[in-house]
Amino acid sequence: MATVKGGRVAVIGASGYGGLQTIRLLQGHPGLSVSFLGGERSAGQRWSSVCSFLPLPDDPKVESADPDRIAACSDFAVLSLPNGLACQLAPQLLERGVRVVDLSADFRYRSLEQWLQVYAKEAGSLNRQDAELCSSAVYGLPEWNGPAIADAKLVAAPGCFPTASLMPLLPFLKQGLIETSGIIIDAKTGTSGGGRVPKEAMLLAEASESIAPYGVIGHRHTSEIEQMAMEVAGQDIRLQFTPHLVPMVRGLLSTVYARLRDPGLTAEDCTTVLEAIYRHHPCVQVLPVGTYPATKWARHTNRALLSVQVDTRTGQLVLMSAIDNLIKGQAGQGVQCINLMAGLAPETGLPLQSFYP
Amino acid sequence: MATVKGGRVAVIGASGYGGLQTIRLLQGHPGLSVSFLGGERSAGQRWSSVCSFLPLPDDPKVESADPDRIAACSDFAVLSLPNGLACQLAPQLLERGVRVVDLSADFRYRSLEQWLQVYAKEAGSLNRQDAELCSSAVYGLPEWNGPAIADAKLVAAPGCFPTASLMPLLPFLKQGLIETSGIIIDAKTGTSGGGRVPKEAMLLAEASESIAPYGVIGHRHTSEIEQMAMEVAGQDIRLQFTPHLVPMVRGLLSTVYARLRDPGLTAEDCTTVLEAIYRHHPCVQVLPVGTYPATKWARHTNRALLSVQVDTRTGQLVLMSAIDNLIKGQAGQGVQCINLMAGLAPETGLPLQSFYP
Amino acid sequence: MATVKGGRVAVIGASGYGGLQTIRLLQGHPGLSVSFLGGERSAGQRWSSVCSFLPLPDDPKVESADPDRIAACSDFAVLSLPNGLACQLAPQLLERGVRVVDLSADFRYRSLEQWLQVYAKEAGSLNRQDAELCSSAVYGLPEWNGPAIADAKLVAAPGCFPTASLMPLLPFLKQGLIETSGIIIDAKTGTSGGGRVPKEAMLLAEASESIAPYGVIGHRHTSEIEQMAMEVAGQDIRLQFTPHLVPMVRGLLSTVYARLRDPGLTAEDCTTVLEAIYRHHPCVQVLPVGTYPATKWARHTNRALLSVQVDTRTGQLVLMSAIDNLIKGQAGQGVQCINLMAGLAPETGLPLQSFYP
Amino acid sequence: MATVKGGRVAVIGASGYGGLQTIRLLQGHPGLSVSFLGGERSAGQRWSSVCSFLPLPDDPKVESADPDRIAACSDFAVLSLPNGLACQLAPQLLERGVRVVDLSADFRYRSLEQWLQVYAKEAGSLNRQDAELCSSAVYGLPEWNGPAIADAKLVAAPGCFPTASLMPLLPFLKQGLIETSGIIIDAKTGTSGGGRVPKEAMLLAEASESIAPYGVIGHRHTSEIEQMAMEVAGQDIRLQFTPHLVPMVRGLLSTVYARLRDPGLTAEDCTTVLEAIYRHHPCVQVLPVGTYPATKWARHTNRALLSVQVDTRTGQLVLMSAIDNLIKGQAGQGVQCINLMAGLAPETGLPLQSFYP
Repeated sequence: MATVKGGRVAVIGASGYGGLQTIRLLQGHPGLSVSFLGGERSAGQRWSSVCSFLPLPDDPKVESADPDRIAACSDFAVLSLPNGLACQLAPQLLERGVRVVDLSADFRYRSLEQWLQVYAKEAGSLNRQDAELCSSAVYGLPEWNGPAIADAKLVAAPGCFPTASLMPLLPFLKQGLIETSGIIIDAKTGTSGGGRVPKEAMLLAEASESIAPYGVIGHRHTSEIEQMAMEVAGQDIRLQFTPHLVPMVRGLLSTVYARLRDPGLTAEDCTTVLEAIYRHHPCVQVLPVGTYPATKWARHTNRALLSVQVDTRTGQLVLMSAIDNLIKGQAGQGVQCINLMAGLAPETGLPLQSFYP
Repeated sequence: MATVKGGRVAVIGASGYGGLQTIRLLQGHPGLSVSFLGGERSAGQRWSSVCSFLPLPDDPKVESADPDRIAACSDFAVLSLPNGLACQLAPQLLERGVRVVDLSADFRYRSLEQWLQVYAKEAGSLNRQDAELCSSAVYGLPEWNGPAIADAKLVAAPGCFPTASLMPLLPFLKQGLIETSGIIIDAKTGTSGGGRVPKEAMLLAEASESIAPYGVIGHRHTSEIEQMAMEVAGQDIRLQFTPHLVPMVRGLLSTVYARLRDPGLTAEDCTTVLEAIYRHHPCVQVLPVGTYPATKWARHTNRALLSVQVDTRTGQLVLMSAIDNLIKGQAGQGVQCINLMAGLAPETGLPLQSFYP
Repeated sequence: MATVKGGRVAVIGASGYGGLQTIRLLQGHPGLSVSFLGGERSAGQRWSSVCSFLPLPDDPKVESADPDRIAACSDFAVLSLPNGLACQLAPQLLERGVRVVDLSADFRYRSLEQWLQVYAKEAGSLNRQDAELCSSAVYGLPEWNGPAIADAKLVAAPGCFPTASLMPLLPFLKQGLIETSGIIIDAKTGTSGGGRVPKEAMLLAEASESIAPYGVIGHRHTSEIEQMAMEVAGQDIRLQFTPHLVPMVRGLLSTVYARLRDPGLTAEDCTTVLEAIYRHHPCVQVLPVGTYPATKWARHTNRALLSVQVDTRTGQLVLMSAIDNLIKGQAGQGVQCINLMAGLAPETGLPLQSFYP
Repeated sequence: MATVKGGRVAVIGASGYGGLQTIRLLQGHPGLSVSFLGGERSAGQRWSSVCSFLPLPDDPKVESADPDRIAACSDFAVLSLPNGLACQLAPQLLERGVRVVDLSADFRYRSLEQWLQVYAKEAGSLNRQDAELCSSAVYGLPEWNGPAIADAKLVAAPGCFPTASLMPLLPFLKQGLIETSGIIIDAKTGTSGGGRVPKEAMLLAEASESIAPYGVIGHRHTSEIEQMAMEVAGQDIRLQFTPHLVPMVRGLLSTVYARLRDPGLTAEDCTTVLEAIYRHHPCVQVLPVGTYPATKWARHTNRALLSVQVDTRTGQLVLMSAIDNLIKGQAGQGVQCINLMAGLAPETGLPLQSFYP
């Protein structure tokens, strides 16, 4: 008897940017469908009054995230909530048989202790049960954890900066081609990464016509990147990560600097390293030597564009990676994980080509 | 008898961005005035028909850059021309007694050989005489070469990236506080740095809503930065410089990474290093620890905003520097040099405060 | 015997914005496929070297637009060329049995005389044959000329401004609800409407952080709008059309002012007028009273968003219409026409929902 | 004995956009100085910690707006507060001899009844005393009410839309050259007009890459424009005003449509009308026929750029007006009023030339 592929997906936090992207991606998806729209603030309202520009069939109501109601109609749930809320809702969904993809940071660390350290302020609600959940959650980077994701009950989708930064870096760590000390990640993101809740710094009047670093030293994504980097490298890693806010809506560029162990390697050699690892991954495109990724090329797609350059004077490796922070860096990656969990090809229903310009 | 301070300034290349900024800055300058508008394409036209939105008194004509005409009415000339043209005009002006500030790259290298290597394509016109001029030209970074600039006949204003990158870096090189290997400069600029001549990559439709690296490895400003860095450090330096194009008109941010020799130094210590060196320089503002510069804070000003952070886990120093690429990174720095040459305070007539937002 | 639906489409002018959008829309289209890539400047090159970020299967070569080569592999041709070129190529394609959708202005006027008057500068190449073609070409506004488009050999896709302006206006002209004198169209467009050829005014440094009118009185689209308006109204119309350049890549908003003949009509009444006419047109969305269209809601979609408001003090009608200038205003409308010509539903393969934000 | 000109100015609401602009304009003003910084939220803090990028001499403290404290050190007060607050503070300042320029809408209507109608929500605090104040306040459009402003105790600075719209319109109303019915104002503003308090619609992620109308029919500025238009025309006027939100920080463009009474008037004639009225007003620049204003030309200046065009087919007049909404549309106009009140030339200390681009 054939296994049924596909499934019904509840979207919790429907009117935020993560929720909106997820709903949009599931529209027209050949194997997945939206089964439930969860949102506290807009509970009870018709979707058309929450979001007039993205009409949904039969104009469903947004509802409060009741676990029984969700479980009655859903195989999967995507949680797009502020940090500290998913860890309360996820257990209730899991025990009712709903498989969960969480877009927040709640389950990204294997160790509850580390989570408490990094996200202390939001940690009030965590309890013993969550420690077990933390260690059982799968880090949802499909190109690196595909089989584990396919079998998972609970997936923690990576942050946008870790996604962009790890994609070009992990192959070199895995192959042992670079020094593990002195790695520097200089990352640049559009303002939609800050979410839809109004903040002064994200006003157009403030953020437009300006670029600025923020969270220099100790940004939360540093430890998330280090965790996965250490797992792949098999050794301790302390790296530098500096995010910058760029005056654009979407797009995230990560420029990664590392020292080659063998200074004789060329840009062509290093491009081959990336191509070898990502050859069968349709959501990754390795650019030819000398072509550098613009975030616009990745916009509205679930694709990561990677490029390599080498300074033969110094043996320095420069890795560049461009993604759409709300798609491959958030909702698209979530859908990619559900695709795997539902037995579908990872790229099913996901846009891979940008509308340029 | 009192020395007369101030002077009359010819602006050559008046309708490009460098020329426009220079003219705007000289409007209302208490010690300098515009004496001549040079421009080949618009020669013979009234200024109001070239640039209706920046009216000048008596609406002068734009003229072809005739050395005799210029010398008859000018003490100084600012050359804002494409690379390879200033080196033809400058000697003619100098021999007529006009002191020259060149905004192009023509005189930025002490060695003609290096210039030929880096700017080979434009080098056709250079000859023996220029080799002497090259070595006699003063690199126009006023905070570091003030006395030499004051006495100079020919000043080469630094590039925008070198200005922003050297300002925070030089103090640490001078004091010997950082390793001279492994320095990484990740820089971000608005599109006006590409000039006013139309190019596809600089169209709003192309550059907006996107960030991308370019000129990775081997960008021309690398060697310009290295030359000045080596001069101050007194030793050989090979550093990494990666420019990125940011979707904004103006502004340039340089994020510089270096390893501290003494990992015990704190961000406060390093801020003190900057403050000690720049205390009496009104065009530099050192920000308190934990405040990071936004380019918007420097926009339309001749000020460089500097900030430092230290990762005590790794002993890594992170330097941040924001300027307006067309003012402190180009025309404002040119006027700052002329101020010194004319016996005026360096900041005379230069805006130091931004209109925010 | 079943009629075969769908077809093979040649795209001429492949690397301009119109060509790029057409190719992107045909990727994944269930009934149409790209059969030929025409481009003079890039003839002979692989597509991947022209446009690395939009990979096509088998990486085809761009070719010179040879009519025989096109006819051998294509049922349809989309011409995305500068004004004055399509009228040379179209006849050669038509006589070889290729049905043509032209995105330029060459066939938008029924009268060759008017074309010569408005587009005089480009008119050198027009001859007797074209006068016949002009009068036989169908104006490709699918919601108004659907049956004629379905049967047409040659379709002239409307300009972006006429599309956005006519969509809300025509219903009121058809029903005789507004005065035909005193109609005012104040339109706003992103800079991609200016095409991909570099122009100073379209540089990010120039166009960003600014809005300005252009072509005030006598813009070419005035007469194109008037032609279609008169056809539907059955009487002479002289209207006011003022375009403005807005600092964004895509999007076009048309705000149309007209006087109601019956000042007692409400916004609800007028919304009903639009709904009645567009009810069965999936590429039009009429917004509820009090909701006004943002161009972002239409971005990357083939949808026109319409809204109405009435000033009961003055009997003035305000119509608002938002489209993506490169999709519903250009390439998407072209594909919509081919859908009809190929016997497909008009919205086949066309995106109707935006990725917001 | 010579009258002392100039004065000391208290800025109340110092950290909002209106306050910031006022402070910036008073820096370096030859006749006015900042005497007091008022702000409730940041009361007690040093200015440098509120606004690190705009250093003030001696780094003053921000204080609560105590009338006695203000009166002790100030000749003038600029109130940059939300609607409904100035009307509480102004009487207390006036009775202590401080002359007030209010940037809010509290005193823009001569009739308290109308104010209550339009600004009902904020009107709770208004009382009998205010009705007298309302009728005694002078509408602060210096080019039209100069002498009254010079003598005023209380000036209500006009809104940004009324400023831009009235400047080109009033001359034609005054001369009786246009029909007073059917006037249409289609206006476009940057997002800084929405202030610094975070709102979802003003986030870069929402407002960028989009243009949209808002407040269609019945926007508050409609009645403010009508009040002044009627005063100058001497007859009843009902006009159409539609604002649009443009993806830029600053800048406001007003496109005004009206019917000429004498259809034989040319664009040249109409330009002469503007020139005749504004000849001696240094904050107004009338552009030559065929040159249309870009808001960027007016950015960071206190200048209004005006242009006229005529459609000889229809006798329709098109007026265009560009200002910086935070300078000539707000704080700059406030300073211009104080200049007059202090016996200075109106443009004293105000920037009239933009840094382009």
